[in-house]
Amino acid sequence: MKRINFGIIGLGRIGIIHLSNISNRIPEAQVIAVADANEQNISGNLTAQQVKYKFTDFHQLLATTEVDAVVIATPTNTHAEIILAAAQAKKAIFCERPIDLSIEKTKIALKSVRDNNVKLMIGFNRRFNPNCYKIYSMINAQKIGRIHLVKTTSRETSIPSKKYLESSGGIFLDMSIQDLDMCRFMMGREVESVFALADRLWDPSLASISDYDTALVTLTFEGGGFAVIDNSRKSDYGFDHRMEIFGDKGMLEMQNELVETHRYHNREGVQGSGPVDFFNERYILSYARELRDFCSSILSPNRPISVGGTDALIALEMAIAAKISCHEKRQVHMSEFRLKH
Amino acid sequence: MKRINFGIIGLGRIGIIHLSNISNRIPEAQVIAVADANEQNISGNLTAQQVKYKFTDFHQLLATTEVDAVVIATPTNTHAEIILAAAQAKKAIFCERPIDLSIEKTKIALKSVRDNNVKLMIGFNRRFNPNCYKIYSMINAQKIGRIHLVKTTSRETSIPSKKYLESSGGIFLDMSIQDLDMCRFMMGREVESVFALADRLWDPSLASISDYDTALVTLTFEGGGFAVIDNSRKSDYGFDHRMEIFGDKGMLEMQNELVETHRYHNREGVQGSGPVDFFNERYILSYARELRDFCSSILSPNRPISVGGTDALIALEMAIAAKISCHEKRQVHMSEFRLKH
Amino acid sequence: MKRINFGIIGLGRIGIIHLSNISNRIPEAQVIAVADANEQNISGNLTAQQVKYKFTDFHQLLATTEVDAVVIATPTNTHAEIILAAAQAKKAIFCERPIDLSIEKTKIALKSVRDNNVKLMIGFNRRFNPNCYKIYSMINAQKIGRIHLVKTTSRETSIPSKKYLESSGGIFLDMSIQDLDMCRFMMGREVESVFALADRLWDPSLASISDYDTALVTLTFEGGGFAVIDNSRKSDYGFDHRMEIFGDKGMLEMQNELVETHRYHNREGVQGSGPVDFFNERYILSYARELRDFCSSILSPNRPISVGGTDALIALEMAIAAKISCHEKRQVHMSEFRLKH
Amino acid sequence: MKRINFGIIGLGRIGIIHLSNISNRIPEAQVIAVADANEQNISGNLTAQQVKYKFTDFHQLLATTEVDAVVIATPTNTHAEIILAAAQAKKAIFCERPIDLSIEKTKIALKSVRDNNVKLMIGFNRRFNPNCYKIYSMINAQKIGRIHLVKTTSRETSIPSKKYLESSGGIFLDMSIQDLDMCRFMMGREVESVFALADRLWDPSLASISDYDTALVTLTFEGGGFAVIDNSRKSDYGFDHRMEIFGDKGMLEMQNELVETHRYHNREGVQGSGPVDFFNERYILSYARELRDFCSSILSPNRPISVGGTDALIALEMAIAAKISCHEKRQVHMSEFRLKH
Repeated sequence: MKRINFGIIGLGRIGIIHLSNISNRIPEAQVIAVADANEQNISGNLTAQQVKYKFTDFHQLLATTEVDAVVIATPTNTHAEIILAAAQAKKAIFCERPIDLSIEKTKIALKSVRDNNVKLMIGFNRRFNPNCYKIYSMINAQKIGRIHLVKTTSRETSIPSKKYLESSGGIFLDMSIQDLDMCRFMMGREVESVFALADRLWDPSLASISDYDTALVTLTFEGGGFAVIDNSRKSDYGFDHRMEIFGDKGMLEMQNELVETHRYHNREGVQGSGPVDFFNERYILSYARELRDFCSSILSPNRPISVGGTDALIALEMAIAAKISCHEKRQVHMSEFRLKH
Repeated sequence: MKRINFGIIGLGRIGIIHLSNISNRIPEAQVIAVADANEQNISGNLTAQQVKYKFTDFHQLLATTEVDAVVIATPTNTHAEIILAAAQAKKAIFCERPIDLSIEKTKIALKSVRDNNVKLMIGFNRRFNPNCYKIYSMINAQKIGRIHLVKTTSRETSIPSKKYLESSGGIFLDMSIQDLDMCRFMMGREVESVFALADRLWDPSLASISDYDTALVTLTFEGGGFAVIDNSRKSDYGFDHRMEIFGDKGMLEMQNELVETHRYHNREGVQGSGPVDFFNERYILSYARELRDFCSSILSPNRPISVGGTDALIALEMAIAAKISCHEKRQVHMSEFRLKH
Repeated sequence: MKRINFGIIGLGRIGIIHLSNISNRIPEAQVIAVADANEQNISGNLTAQQVKYKFTDFHQLLATTEVDAVVIATPTNTHAEIILAAAQAKKAIFCERPIDLSIEKTKIALKSVRDNNVKLMIGFNRRFNPNCYKIYSMINAQKIGRIHLVKTTSRETSIPSKKYLESSGGIFLDMSIQDLDMCRFMMGREVESVFALADRLWDPSLASISDYDTALVTLTFEGGGFAVIDNSRKSDYGFDHRMEIFGDKGMLEMQNELVETHRYHNREGVQGSGPVDFFNERYILSYARELRDFCSSILSPNRPISVGGTDALIALEMAIAAKISCHEKRQVHMSEFRLKH
Repeated sequence: MKRINFGIIGLGRIGIIHLSNISNRIPEAQVIAVADANEQNISGNLTAQQVKYKFTDFHQLLATTEVDAVVIATPTNTHAEIILAAAQAKKAIFCERPIDLSIEKTKIALKSVRDNNVKLMIGFNRRFNPNCYKIYSMINAQKIGRIHLVKTTSRETSIPSKKYLESSGGIFLDMSIQDLDMCRFMMGREVESVFALADRLWDPSLASISDYDTALVTLTFEGGGFAVIDNSRKSDYGFDHRMEIFGDKGMLEMQNELVETHRYHNREGVQGSGPVDFFNERYILSYARELRDFCSSILSPNRPISVGGTDALIALEMAIAAKISCHEKRQVHMSEFRLKH
């Protein structure tokens, strides 16, 4: 069987994860080309991974006919442009989220994908986390009946640098967006309205860049049902990502993965391990599973993409709705919002 | 030591709990009188509890000079009137929540309490639940630092009858009010604004009485910080009351009490007991502890009441704010709200 | 319905528990008489419990014709004599364990019970603990199939006084005996052989009274299967009583009951409550349930006693077998043992 | 820095794990040679792992001067002979457990290691499991004080083939040996006596090869303290490996790792995932960590080996003592036992 030949554009932290995953965990694919504007990122010894081509200009990678599919792991503000070029080069495209911070540019990129009839998958990797996926499977198996409420909690371990935050789009577009996608994914229906609150409870100086470190978002869904998301950029006890989904036949919780399984009993009570420390450790498997899922869609042309451009567009719209709600201190209806754009 | 002589007004389900608790669990008090308009409720053999006086008219009970303190456990719409009379009779008063569904009548009752300089405690019994109290103690011991977020979940096992619901004031005044009080209690600061959503996800016919079975309320607090409350009148897996409180030094969860402690491991995984079934079973101890706390305040005149009239008034205002928010689909500020009344 | 009239012989710690349970938790019974050689124990105000007769000589209690049933809660070395007299007086008998430390005296007492055709129940109260009973019910419902292994752990919070220990019969007869009964109860088959180890790991001075603070007992059962019991007179983290039962279709654990349900997450990990502190708190319900079970057997003459004299005799034989095994450092077969006596 | 050049002898299931771990997880080492009598095992494409030499005769591998260290992963009955040859060839040696089923041959192999002054490490990989190691670290940090009791449970998912069992040495030498090593490791003292029981509760036909599927072993330790091991070749609910260690300052439990972290609440109670399925999945990291530890000892000549030949010899002696105890139905003292051999 011919393996899928991948080119990776952008060899930063996430690009390296994809390179390693394709090389070690996805037998049906291999990385034959990499591109990064920063020559240092591609100067290392990548032979172990059998990378034949190294470019500083991603156009050269796209011009390489042996390349079947590309992974876009560059900074967000370059995604739309690269998708456009890759679609024209007829490559299957895997792009890290979000496509862009602007709905307009996102739509242009998606049009190009449609026009060139190429496959596009977006990296909402949490959907592929084994624990999230287990919950999703149980919902689909009707274990909890019709869903009334989805609750997600995401707390990171430390506030990113202001430099990072300034180009991130803010807490709703950079952080809540993953939870928004997850709520919609679990509920299996579209969001109707968004109400969002945010504050700077950890670092008041975030006001200088008009960003927040804490957010609380409530959603109503078409056909009924609610969701609530709470986000914090920081947590003293470690990375915390949990969910709870309440339906008319039962309730599902997704708990944190713990570092170790011990329980220590002493006069103070019983003590155990905290959550696995950094999101890479927790989601490393998710990255491999999402790419493998992408490969399946390439190999079976009739299999639809699991997380496509529309999913990315809707997640972006929800995040922007949250931003508007927070700014204007009112409930934002997705219908109203969509007319606006 | 002289024991406190109690009179209980209203011998329904809750009145009986108080009678039994005072008789068996509070050595510093005894019930010497009961009053209930329904003669059947007081006709039983109450000698085991050494009740000397039985009345069908509560005024007679209030006229009994041996009675030091009264417990008001009658239907809500009679509370304000009885408080007024009891205050004039100079009795210490323990009244089930809420004082009244109207802010105006509540304020009149509280004025009478102040004018007659009697003690009044309101039955927010959850504050005295051992698990809630443990959480509260740990917060006060600075275990989690400054609080950013309070989350409470309350799900009951079945929807009350429409007859009950019609005079209950609706989900916010009848059910959410306990969570609203709990959020304020845990946060230790006053609520600034309320945003509430509600729906009939279990029983659409509740529209006929303008009530809901599901509610989702978000709060902002003076000085910063958020809370979110989710309520459901029904739950297929049993009575569910949990809390989570996130601060800058850690996080506290209050989990459900379970029926049994077994864990059963088989091919399906591991299975354990569900939550303790009915709120009486879970909160029976709370009722005894709140009354004991009330007795301490009577015996130590300088000890302030733990849950006083102002707490009841504020909880009522928050519940009404939630009702308005839900109706008018907007964030309601407590300041605006207070001007209104 | 006529209530069962109880007489309680011995009003120490356990006698008081039975008095309170019969008075408050068992509507089908009442205590009308008490007897205690120590006049102080019966001089208190017992009117609340409607006790009509108070004696310092238990023979007077047995001579009271209104008394239907007796609870024997005196020191162990008086049990056999009182059972004899109570059987002759044709009373139904509930006796705290053990009947006696000697197999011979135990057999004499049991013969008298048989000869007089009265009912006798022995206070192995753990069998009636709701968590133990849940496990037992699941076993009987074939949830784990055929049992291969029973494991029980019992750790107390502090070493009893030497005065108590000297008349207790030692760790095997005073402490392990409950676990031995529990293993036999759960397995549903008879023990074939016993191998026991013991040591003084907490207090070497126990050698002076030939007792131990730590024991480890392994059992083999007729028809196959094993059990292992570990006992410690002390535990720094609180009272610990757990079980694990492994069968060919699954495994059941009985975990400790915890003081509170909170979980505290901070940099150290997650922390929760320790086990409920003292066995009274944990087993108070068990005492009420076992007496209620006894009452059912009295009221339904054809209903066999749940824990009868033979159960007590076999538990005693197992405990003595353990003592011999430990002393002679060898496996003791119950058959060999039974011939010996 | 020069990397350690490894040769792997035996490329079956375990050999492949070591090959993959050295290649992907241990940057300070590389595999340059493999040897396997079965040509098929080395005919595959191993270039990814940069293996330069492939032999069917392990002597050729030992004769390769570039090889610094060898991993012996052949069938047990060849270990002693290969250790002898490897020691003479002055290679550092990592050998899978056990060295041999005979104490005599084990001693001869160890003598050769001493005479040639080479390093030898034995693959008791469980010691390097992160959860076991956490427990061990906490014990060494005096978290539970002096140890009174170690309990280990190991239950496998299915009974191995009779072919495998016949050359395995039986349940004590093949399975219990790991628990015996673990008890000694955690206790930090030597075993004094062994008492072992065993039966065929799953498969009576194991009698035909004089083996068992279930074992229960109790140990006493020099200086006081006990251990109990329960083993089953099969478990209907999955691979179960837990420990509990009770000391005078507290207690430590090592619980199973679970497949997923969800909790499903419905009318039956709450349900969660079972244990991680196969020991490879659970212990894969352990294999990498033990080899990395071995590499550290090679690179730092003064660093002693973590699990050396004496550890292997003592574990074997304990396992044989258990076998004798079970056969002769008596407690076996390690002293008596050592004289015997």
